Amino acid sequence: MTFTAPLTGVVPPVCTPLTPDREVDTASLIRLVDHLVRGGVDGLFVLGSSSEVAYLTDRQRRTVVETVVGHVGGQLPVLAGVIDMTTPRVLDHVRYVTEAGADAVVATAPFYTRTHPAEIARHFRLIAAGSPVPVLAYDLPVSVHSKLAAELVLGLAAEGVLAGLKDSSGDEGGFRQVVMGARARGGISGFSVLTGSELVVDSALAMGADGVVPGLGNVDPEGYVRLYRYCREGDWERARAEQERLCGLFGMVAVGDAGRMGGSSSALGAFKAALHLRGVIDCPATAEPQVPLSAGEVERVGKFLAGAGLL
Amino acid sequence: MTFTAPLTGVVPPVCTPLTPDREVDTASLIRLVDHLVRGGVDGLFVLGSSSEVAYLTDRQRRTVVETVVGHVGGQLPVLAGVIDMTTPRVLDHVRYVTEAGADAVVATAPFYTRTHPAEIARHFRLIAAGSPVPVLAYDLPVSVHSKLAAELVLGLAAEGVLAGLKDSSGDEGGFRQVVMGARARGGISGFSVLTGSELVVDSALAMGADGVVPGLGNVDPEGYVRLYRYCREGDWERARAEQERLCGLFGMVAVGDAGRMGGSSSALGAFKAALHLRGVIDCPATAEPQVPLSAGEVERVGKFLAGAGLL
Amino acid sequence: MTFTAPLTGVVPPVCTPLTPDREVDTASLIRLVDHLVRGGVDGLFVLGSSSEVAYLTDRQRRTVVETVVGHVGGQLPVLAGVIDMTTPRVLDHVRYVTEAGADAVVATAPFYTRTHPAEIARHFRLIAAGSPVPVLAYDLPVSVHSKLAAELVLGLAAEGVLAGLKDSSGDEGGFRQVVMGARARGGISGFSVLTGSELVVDSALAMGADGVVPGLGNVDPEGYVRLYRYCREGDWERARAEQERLCGLFGMVAVGDAGRMGGSSSALGAFKAALHLRGVIDCPATAEPQVPLSAGEVERVGKFLAGAGLL
Amino acid sequence: MTFTAPLTGVVPPVCTPLTPDREVDTASLIRLVDHLVRGGVDGLFVLGSSSEVAYLTDRQRRTVVETVVGHVGGQLPVLAGVIDMTTPRVLDHVRYVTEAGADAVVATAPFYTRTHPAEIARHFRLIAAGSPVPVLAYDLPVSVHSKLAAELVLGLAAEGVLAGLKDSSGDEGGFRQVVMGARARGGISGFSVLTGSELVVDSALAMGADGVVPGLGNVDPEGYVRLYRYCREGDWERARAEQERLCGLFGMVAVGDAGRMGGSSSALGAFKAALHLRGVIDCPATAEPQVPLSAGEVERVGKFLAGAGLL
Repeated sequence: MTFTAPLTGVVPPVCTPLTPDREVDTASLIRLVDHLVRGGVDGLFVLGSSSEVAYLTDRQRRTVVETVVGHVGGQLPVLAGVIDMTTPRVLDHVRYVTEAGADAVVATAPFYTRTHPAEIARHFRLIAAGSPVPVLAYDLPVSVHSKLAAELVLGLAAEGVLAGLKDSSGDEGGFRQVVMGARARGGISGFSVLTGSELVVDSALAMGADGVVPGLGNVDPEGYVRLYRYCREGDWERARAEQERLCGLFGMVAVGDAGRMGGSSSALGAFKAALHLRGVIDCPATAEPQVPLSAGEVERVGKFLAGAGLL
Repeated sequence: MTFTAPLTGVVPPVCTPLTPDREVDTASLIRLVDHLVRGGVDGLFVLGSSSEVAYLTDRQRRTVVETVVGHVGGQLPVLAGVIDMTTPRVLDHVRYVTEAGADAVVATAPFYTRTHPAEIARHFRLIAAGSPVPVLAYDLPVSVHSKLAAELVLGLAAEGVLAGLKDSSGDEGGFRQVVMGARARGGISGFSVLTGSELVVDSALAMGADGVVPGLGNVDPEGYVRLYRYCREGDWERARAEQERLCGLFGMVAVGDAGRMGGSSSALGAFKAALHLRGVIDCPATAEPQVPLSAGEVERVGKFLAGAGLL
Repeated sequence: MTFTAPLTGVVPPVCTPLTPDREVDTASLIRLVDHLVRGGVDGLFVLGSSSEVAYLTDRQRRTVVETVVGHVGGQLPVLAGVIDMTTPRVLDHVRYVTEAGADAVVATAPFYTRTHPAEIARHFRLIAAGSPVPVLAYDLPVSVHSKLAAELVLGLAAEGVLAGLKDSSGDEGGFRQVVMGARARGGISGFSVLTGSELVVDSALAMGADGVVPGLGNVDPEGYVRLYRYCREGDWERARAEQERLCGLFGMVAVGDAGRMGGSSSALGAFKAALHLRGVIDCPATAEPQVPLSAGEVERVGKFLAGAGLL
Repeated sequence: MTFTAPLTGVVPPVCTPLTPDREVDTASLIRLVDHLVRGGVDGLFVLGSSSEVAYLTDRQRRTVVETVVGHVGGQLPVLAGVIDMTTPRVLDHVRYVTEAGADAVVATAPFYTRTHPAEIARHFRLIAAGSPVPVLAYDLPVSVHSKLAAELVLGLAAEGVLAGLKDSSGDEGGFRQVVMGARARGGISGFSVLTGSELVVDSALAMGADGVVPGLGNVDPEGYVRLYRYCREGDWERARAEQERLCGLFGMVAVGDAGRMGGSSSALGAFKAALHLRGVIDCPATAEPQVPLSAGEVERVGKFLAGAGLL
C-alpha cells in the first residue's frame, strides 16, 4: 500500500483483543479487522492508545502489526503507533513496525522527561529521517503532558517532516488553526489532519479535517462511516443526528466505578465488553494492571449498545 | 551481592556516558563507577532518570547493567531502574536487568495511561511476583504525573511487595509520613526509605531516612558521603555547611537557556559537562533529542565546580 | 428588561475601558456599548473575564454596571459577572450588581480554595436562593482550576437553580453533552447554553447552542452577528468563511511577547488596542499589574485589523 | 506594635470562629486569641487561608482585624492577609486592614488571571508602594496556581519591596534557596523567611528559617512553641519527637470523607472541631459552601486530640 495521497476518511484505532492470560488473541484481532473493513473504514491505526499500546510488550506489538498487515495489507493503509518516551526508543519501534509492513507511523512528543518545543521538533525530524514510511504526529496531552502547538505542527509539515496530525487534544480551536494553516500553505501536499474525537467529528469535518480516528469506531464502524459520508455530502442535519446517536453510545466509557478503577480501565473495558457482547472478540480482558469491569458494569455496556440499536 | 539488610547510605543514580554518536561509552561508564566507588558510595542505581533511562534503548539499558555489574558486582549493591509505561513492559525490563545481575529493581507507577491507586497497587504486586530480586517504588510525579500516597507505599511494604521507596516527589511532608510509618510498623524489616533530593538531604536523614540517591552525587560523591556521615554522627552544623555547599553546586542544573532547551537538557547536560571537565568521562553528549549546552553554558558549569572547590 | 425567555444570540463580554490612571472611563464605555448595539448584538455581559473583572475594585465594578444599565437598560439584557472566591463574597457582588439593574448574574465555581462537586452544587444553590435575578454558571477552568461536569450543570438546571451556562472550557465534547442534555430534558425551559469560544462558534451553534459570548466580539461585533445569522439560516458555507475570517483576526491575542508578559496582558491588551485604533475608546490601558503592549505590538494589532477589513 | 526587626517565632494563622448563621463570632475569636497568646506564640496572622479568608466578606474581614488588634494590638504583631485576585483589589484590602491596625500585610501573586513573573513583581511593588506597613509575600501554589521563584522573592527583598515570605508551597528545596539567599545578601535586613508547613518545621528551622506559620498551631500552640524552642536551643532530638507528635495530630486534616467534601472542608472543619472540643470556640461551623463534618468524623478528631495528649 503506498501512502502518496493524504489519508482521509474513517481510520479507527484498532483495539487489541487479548486472551484470558493476556496474550494477543490473533484470531479475534483478525475478526475485529474484518468487522471494521466490512463496516467500510478507510484505514486502520494499530498500536494507538485505544489499542492499549502502553500495555503491550514489544513482542506483542510486533505480533499485532504482523497480524493486521498480513491480513489486510495492500487493501487499505495500516498506520502503526510507535509510542515511547524519546527518540532512540521510538526509532526502535519504527524499525520493527515497518519491517512488519506498516504504511505509516504515528509518534507523540517525548514524555516522562521534561521537554521543550525545540526538542520536540528535533524529535520528529530524527524520526522522519529514520523512518522508511511517512510520520504522523499524535497530539495527546492527557498522556504526554505537553501540547503540540499549531505553528510547530505546520512548520514540520512544511519541512516535509510530518505527513499528518492525529489530534486527540480536545482543543478544537487549536485543531482549526492546523486545518486552516494546512490549507493556507497549499504547498503541504499530502498532509492529513485527523481528529481523535468521538464527539465532535461533524464539527471537525465541517472545519475541513481530512479524517477521523475514533476509538468508538471499533464498536460501531458503520456509524462513523455514515457520519463521515453525510458530512462529505454536506448533509449536516443527518450528520448531526448520527453524531448524536454516537455521543449517546459513547456514554459507555464512564460505566466503570471511578472509586474502583481509572479512566482507561473503564473506557477500554467498555469498548472490549461491547465487542465481546457483539460477538466480535472472544474475551473482553484488558491488559494488566487495569481493573476489569464488574458484571453490572458490563450489563450497562449492553444497555448502551441496545440504546444505539446495536444489540 | 545479596540484598538482605535495608539499603542505607549514598546510592547515586549513575549517569550514562555516551559516545559522540550516542552509544553507551562503556569505558567512561567504568571510570565513572570507579570515581563513585572511590568517593565512598554505598550502592549504585543505574537506569534512573539521571541515567537518561528514558532515552536509552533496551539494548543500551542491558549494556549499562552488564557493564556496571560486571565491574563492581558483589562489591556493592547495584539497583536498576525498570522504567516503562505499564506492568507487562516493566516485567520485560525486570527480566533482562536481573539476568544481567541487578540486585534490586526500581519501578514507577504506570504512566502515559490514566491510572488509579488500585491499579498502581496491582502493578507493584505483579512486578514483585515476577521479580527474582527486591522491588523499590520510585515516586517521581514530575515524570509520572501521579503521586504515590504514603498509605499505599506503607501498605505494600507491609505486604512484602516493596523493599523500599525512592522519593523524588519533593514532598517532604509526605516523605516524613513514610519514614514515620515504616518505623511505627516496626515489622517492615528491610524496608529502605531513600530520598532523591539533592537539596534537603540533611533534613531527610534527620527525619530518619535510610539513604540518599542524589543525581549531583555523580559530580561530587565525596560531598554526599561526607554529608551522610555528618548526619549519622549527629554533627548537624557540619552537615548543614556541607549541604549548603552542595546546594550552591546544584545551581549548575539551571545553566541551560530555558528559551532554548528543556530542564532535562540543562540539568543532565550540566552533570555530564561537569564529569567531562573533571576528567571522568570522555564526552559530555546527552541523548537525542536533548539540546547540547553551549560553550558559554559549559563555562558556567566550570565556575560552579570551581566555586565548590572541585576544579 | 425581563429575562423570561432563554437568552440567545451574540452577547459579548464587554471590555472595560480605563483612563490612563486606571479609573473606569465611562464615556468610552458608553461609546463601546453603542458600538456593540449598533453592531447588532443581542445582550451584553459586563464584568466577565474579558472585562478585566479580576482587576476591578468593587466600586469600579458597580460603576460599570450602573453605566451600562443606565445607558441601555431595557433595550437589551445586561448580564453581570459576580466573580469571587466563594459563596459569601459572590453574594455581596450579587447584591450591588442587581441593585444597579443587572438582568442576570454569572458566577463561577469556588476558586482559590480546594473544592468538591457537592460544594460547587451547594454554592450555586445558595447564590440562586440569594439572587433576585437568574443565575448562569461560568465554566472557565483556566481561571478556576476546576471543570463543571455536564451532569452537575444539567442537574442544577433541572432544579431551577441555573438559567444557563457560559462555557469557556474549550471542551467541545462536554459542551455538546450539556446541549444534548438540555434538549433531552425538554423541561429545562429557559435554559441557555452559551459558548465562550471565539474560534468554533459555527460548531457550537451547529450542535444546538443558544448563543455566543466572544471576547473578540468587542472588536468586531458585526462579524459575530453575521456569523450567528448565517448559522441560524443554515448557511454553513458562509458561516465557515466568516468564522475563518474571525479566526484570523483572533490571532491578535498573541501579539504580546510571551517572554515579557502573561496571556491576559497580551489578549486584553490587543482587544483594547484594537478598540483604540478603531476609534471606539480613548485609551488602550489595561489594569495593573498587566504589562502594556509595545508600540510594535500595537502596530501588529493594526495589521490584524487591516487583514480582516476593519481598518 | 512597630515591625522593625525581622519577625521570628511561631505566628499561627488564626482560625475565624463563626456563629451557626456564619457571622464572625467575636467572643470566640477573642478566646482563641487568648488561647494562642497563653500558648506563647510570637505573633498572629489573621485572614490567611486557615482563617477561611477566601470565604469572608470584606465586612467580616474588617471585623476580624478590628477584633484581634483591639484585643492584643501592641502586645504582639498582627499580620493580616490581603488575599484577592489582582493589585487594585488587594490595595483595597490593604487600606482597611491597616486602618484597623494590622502591623503588616500578606499578599499572594495574582490569581484567577493568567500572569507572568514580570507582572508578579510589578504587583508586589505596587502593593508595597501603597501600603503603610511592611508587605510579606505568600507562596501558596495550591490556591494561586503559580510558584514564587526564589530569585524573584530575593530580588524584591533586596529592593526593599518585601519584608518577608510565608512559604506554603511544600517545596523545601526552593525554601532553602530563599533562606540561603537572604543570608548571603546580608543586606536584606529585617527580611523574615517563614514556613507554612506543619510537618517539617524542624527541618525548616534547621535550615535557618526565621519562623513558622502552622494552621495546626491553632489547635496546639504550646506544641509549636516547644518545637520552636527546642530547635533554637539545638536540641534536635527533642525537636524531632515534638514534631513527630504534631505530625500524628495533623492526621486530623484527613478525617473528612473525600467522596463527600473537599480538602478545605475536611482540614478546616477538623481544626474548628478540635477547637470546639477543647472548649476554645462556641461553634465549629465552617463557612459556605463547605460541607460540615459528620458526627463520626468529629469523633475521629477527638481521637487525634486524645492521641496527642490534648483531651
